[in-house]
Amino acid sequence: MNEPYFDLFLILSGIYFLTVGDPPGLACFVRVNAANRSLPRIYSWKEEIKVMAAITKDPKRNSMVVTMPAESLPPRSWRTKLIGRPLATADAPHQAIGKLVGLAVFSSDALSSVAYATQEMLVVLAVAGVAAFGISIPLSIVIVGLLFILTISYEQTIHAYPGGGGAYIVARDNLGELPAQTAGAALLTDYILTVAVSVSSGVAQLVSAYPDFEPFRVWIGVVLVLFIMLINLRGVKESGTTFAFPTYFFLLMMVLTLGFGLVRYATGTLGVVVDPPHLEVLQTTQVVTLFLILRAFASGTTALTGVEAISNGITAFKEPRSHNAGTTLVWMAAILGSMLLGVTFLSHQVGAVPSESETVISQLARTAFGGRGILYLAMIAGTTIILVMAANTAFADFPRLGALHAGDGFLPRQLTYRGSRLVYSRGILALALIASGLIIVFRASVTALIPLYAIGVFLSFTLSQSGMARRWWKIGHLGPGQEVRERGSTLRYTPGWRLKMVINGFGALCTGVVMLVFAVTKFTSGAWIVVFLTPALVFIFFRIHHHYKDLAADLSLENHWPNPPVALRHRVILPISGVHQGTLKALRFARALSDDVTAVHVSMDSDEAEKIKDKWDEWGEGVRLVILDSPYRLMLEPLISYIEMLTSQNRQDELITIVVPQFVPRHWWHNLLHTQAALTLRMALLSRPGVTVTDVPYQVR
Amino acid sequence: MNEPYFDLFLILSGIYFLTVGDPPGLACFVRVNAANRSLPRIYSWKEEIKVMAAITKDPKRNSMVVTMPAESLPPRSWRTKLIGRPLATADAPHQAIGKLVGLAVFSSDALSSVAYATQEMLVVLAVAGVAAFGISIPLSIVIVGLLFILTISYEQTIHAYPGGGGAYIVARDNLGELPAQTAGAALLTDYILTVAVSVSSGVAQLVSAYPDFEPFRVWIGVVLVLFIMLINLRGVKESGTTFAFPTYFFLLMMVLTLGFGLVRYATGTLGVVVDPPHLEVLQTTQVVTLFLILRAFASGTTALTGVEAISNGITAFKEPRSHNAGTTLVWMAAILGSMLLGVTFLSHQVGAVPSESETVISQLARTAFGGRGILYLAMIAGTTIILVMAANTAFADFPRLGALHAGDGFLPRQLTYRGSRLVYSRGILALALIASGLIIVFRASVTALIPLYAIGVFLSFTLSQSGMARRWWKIGHLGPGQEVRERGSTLRYTPGWRLKMVINGFGALCTGVVMLVFAVTKFTSGAWIVVFLTPALVFIFFRIHHHYKDLAADLSLENHWPNPPVALRHRVILPISGVHQGTLKALRFARALSDDVTAVHVSMDSDEAEKIKDKWDEWGEGVRLVILDSPYRLMLEPLISYIEMLTSQNRQDELITIVVPQFVPRHWWHNLLHTQAALTLRMALLSRPGVTVTDVPYQVR
Repeated sequence: MNEPYFDLFLILSGIYFLTVGDPPGLACFVRVNAANRSLPRIYSWKEEIKVMAAITKDPKRNSMVVTMPAESLPPRSWRTKLIGRPLATADAPHQAIGKLVGLAVFSSDALSSVAYATQEMLVVLAVAGVAAFGISIPLSIVIVGLLFILTISYEQTIHAYPGGGGAYIVARDNLGELPAQTAGAALLTDYILTVAVSVSSGVAQLVSAYPDFEPFRVWIGVVLVLFIMLINLRGVKESGTTFAFPTYFFLLMMVLTLGFGLVRYATGTLGVVVDPPHLEVLQTTQVVTLFLILRAFASGTTALTGVEAISNGITAFKEPRSHNAGTTLVWMAAILGSMLLGVTFLSHQVGAVPSESETVISQLARTAFGGRGILYLAMIAGTTIILVMAANTAFADFPRLGALHAGDGFLPRQLTYRGSRLVYSRGILALALIASGLIIVFRASVTALIPLYAIGVFLSFTLSQSGMARRWWKIGHLGPGQEVRERGSTLRYTPGWRLKMVINGFGALCTGVVMLVFAVTKFTSGAWIVVFLTPALVFIFFRIHHHYKDLAADLSLENHWPNPPVALRHRVILPISGVHQGTLKALRFARALSDDVTAVHVSMDSDEAEKIKDKWDEWGEGVRLVILDSPYRLMLEPLISYIEMLTSQNRQDELITIVVPQFVPRHWWHNLLHTQAALTLRMALLSRPGVTVTDVPYQVR
Repeated sequence: MNEPYFDLFLILSGIYFLTVGDPPGLACFVRVNAANRSLPRIYSWKEEIKVMAAITKDPKRNSMVVTMPAESLPPRSWRTKLIGRPLATADAPHQAIGKLVGLAVFSSDALSSVAYATQEMLVVLAVAGVAAFGISIPLSIVIVGLLFILTISYEQTIHAYPGGGGAYIVARDNLGELPAQTAGAALLTDYILTVAVSVSSGVAQLVSAYPDFEPFRVWIGVVLVLFIMLINLRGVKESGTTFAFPTYFFLLMMVLTLGFGLVRYATGTLGVVVDPPHLEVLQTTQVVTLFLILRAFASGTTALTGVEAISNGITAFKEPRSHNAGTTLVWMAAILGSMLLGVTFLSHQVGAVPSESETVISQLARTAFGGRGILYLAMIAGTTIILVMAANTAFADFPRLGALHAGDGFLPRQLTYRGSRLVYSRGILALALIASGLIIVFRASVTALIPLYAIGVFLSFTLSQSGMARRWWKIGHLGPGQEVRERGSTLRYTPGWRLKMVINGFGALCTGVVMLVFAVTKFTSGAWIVVFLTPALVFIFFRIHHHYKDLAADLSLENHWPNPPVALRHRVILPISGVHQGTLKALRFARALSDDVTAVHVSMDSDEAEKIKDKWDEWGEGVRLVILDSPYRLMLEPLISYIEMLTSQNRQDELITIVVPQFVPRHWWHNLLHTQAALTLRMALLSRPGVTVTDVPYQVR
């Protein structure tokens, strides 16, 4: 029967038997014919017609392709209870946010840092005695100046990269892979530290209000991290209200605290902190050195962490995106600057003292509000919540950046996999684990964590701004009207590129200097970890990339010739430990594969071997049996060397398959009662070229 | 060509080409012909002739059986360095020992218990104040009486079971499986406790002499256990000198200590312990109750642990075995009894005080020798060493008993496997791990461990003696000259069986009573653990036995019909994640298995699926491709439900094989960079009947 008629026959007879009946004889005829013509196997007549239709639709293809929807939903389990029902890929939310919500969504990281920046400056200055605390005010002014430079610089980035201008992308497009990976490594490290520092600071606020919780601070921190992890695994949409309420509540409480404080300061009724925590100072008070001031300055610059957040998330804004994002950035910087100045100034006035047992914010709030009343508690609650929100931001950014790296082949590919709730679950889990580890190791102490923090941020600031400067330079050298498309943005000639280049260049210079100051002044107290870790990470990233590139080259079908004709001979080896139903099932399979079957038994006991020989005589269907004597009672090694002997003689047109009878018990713990010889054999043989391993499972009823 | 001529042709042409050359054409002809006739594959001409010879030798067999020596020695590694070069099964040592050496080999467990038995009695009596210490002397006399009964009783066992009469064997042959398993469980528990108690007591002796080691006592104990484990893994032969020197050294030092003590007591120069350790007594001193006395008695009976050792090891003795073993038992009992009495009496005279910081033996020795001189140190060293030897005895017995249980199918079969040094390595490892765990949990405190100890020993004494009594009863009811062969011994009529039955019965009664006293008086201080653990273990043993019996029935070839004819159809499913060299290798294999191949791709991304379709067009060799759309980004579940759909339609004469391309990276840690989809798929499919999984490895160069 020639082809088109046969198709017609199939379809018609299908319809006939679908309505009338399914006489096995004819079905079998069609089945066999379909199989011979390499049609998809037919499960039922209904299926068949669907399948036929699918095939006949695409006659241009060389091979038959059938697309089926997989109806399977993931199984319900404790996981679906914990993180919610799975979401289909098509459900990914697309929403655009305005400036007011945008400020709330992206600023928690930056704004929350006023909760610890002032305090950490004071911690450093404390070694020079209480008199040195006043230095924090001019330092804050310098930091606000730096914030100003950064804001202008990043405003330019936002307009240049409307599709999102994180340090990784800017560095990759303008400086090359190495700076890009360095920026990425620095940022990934820093997101981890954001979680650890923010949560630790949040716990410190809580403990200030409720000192009874002091002994549990580490575990409160870990539980908070796991809680944020769970929220993120659920993939709660970053909806306006979720973020807006806590952020604006914090801002309101901050305005009230600073307002009360300033009014009482102006009227002279502010006073000082009642019953301040004990100040732990060194025996001998040091003199104020430049090094000390720079150290305090470095601690204060942690206030600037999180400023880059908006430039990463431009795509979330409503159109005109860049304009809205830029305006939001300016607002955020203004709020952050005023808050930092206000907190530092008032803290000095009330004589707040840095301490592990009560935060400066807490001392300031209870002095401004005149006691631990409802307003004080609201302020502490607001601060704690915004700090947790900041950690949450890192939970959004870390997996996304990780997936970006993984997509480019610099981190394990698994990080690009979206879990059942459409979030990068593996990245979220990794972040939670490492951050919890840090909190445990550093006993949830912000002061201990701070020296590790901010180096990475400033390194990425520097690389990002340098990349921008380079970009302006490239733009300046384009002809008018000329366009160059890069991976992250499009270059067009822009007048005034020189000024823009200088602005970004100056930004890079400033942040670079801050980074160096930070690394040097904090080196011995912990910064060395980051100084060594970042290059190590970059090295690992490149090793991973190397592996993927090698692999891709190895697997590539370029310069590949079609497969040689199907193998001429197929040799099957059947290792057996005894002769029983499982063995016979495997023997049946082995004989279906090839006529050239050899059973092999490794014998540690000659009596046992005799029994097996006799049984094989009866049940072995004439297949040859090789007994390998193992005087050292080794199981695996004789078998492997036998197989190696065979493979060493192997030719191009031969296949060697090891058929392993695999016993599958009813309960997994029954495996404890059996030597896992099949598994071990498989592991040992997998890495040997030229051998294929087949498990023939024998399930115990 | 008919058969004999063909064989001749093969051999002759083999010899010809072996000497002259190996022209590929003819070799190929012979190869193919050999394969068709289902002869073993030929690796080289030399091999071939060997193989041919092997086959022609045994023409009676139904199937061809070839036996080859496996030349492979286990690979050299850190393990061979640690435990020595492997020993062949034929190297197992067979040596017989005399009475003097036998005493040393088998008595360390029993004799060493005088190092703690007296002390533990005093610990109990201490709650009634120092005045109650005197009660230890009559208690010791009662214990020696019990020892006397036990010795007579076991002497009979030794003569009845010349092949070894452990409690397990005696109970199995005379009382049935349940008592036998109970005796076994009790003994296994007790061997573990022997290690923990002996090593802890050894450490206590050390710490008495060198109090600086006090903070490390737990870790010294653990290191000692691991050291003994290593010695046993090496499988050092139980040679005379290894055992004789420390045992006789201990005996010598004990005789010296007791001798010096008694002479000085007689001459009135003994005095009392100088600067004794502080006695921790309760606030309110209790009165001496019967319960307290029984409690102290129970602690003292730990001196009798190890008496059964000789009855287990009769086969090690020179002929006449039973006689020699029996004599050795009597000697041992005499030495043990005198030492216990001597130590208890002198300890009371010098006013020794039970303490965790200095043992009674140490106090006694330094009083007898008049200070911490060389004799004192020798005594402490001797005691420590004999205690370590006692632990070593348990390391010999536990794995042997475990293998006995495992051989009968009541413990995992792996325990019967002899490691490269011909010892039951897994049993040794298990014992070391559990005993170390006990030492850590109980802080290496003998007093804390003692309540768990000895119940098991006395339970096994009781079962063993009851079994013996039952055996005499059976013997008494045989006709003269009649013989009954049991698994462990042969029954023959013996005159005087009534007396022997009464002796064993009385032994059983006494030890049974002691066991009850022990369980009741020590219940709250730890004996409850053993009281609940022993039945739990017996339950587990029977569950394991049940599993093995079920499995054997399931695998049995009785009532099994020959395999149905080779499967008619063979359907092959090839899951692919992309089209690359690994896929093509698997495709080549799949097509060698069957013409009915279906490639399946689970698609989470429609762009990716399009690419795969195009590539498949080019490389798929016309094989059909099924694309399963996975909207929930699940990998495994759609594939499994697809395969389930196929298997549900599967017929008796069909085989379904899943060919999984398995990527094998160069370094194991590269696996971290890949989703282990092949492995997970295999795990998920193994337990499904009717499906066979084949891995086609693709090794990266």
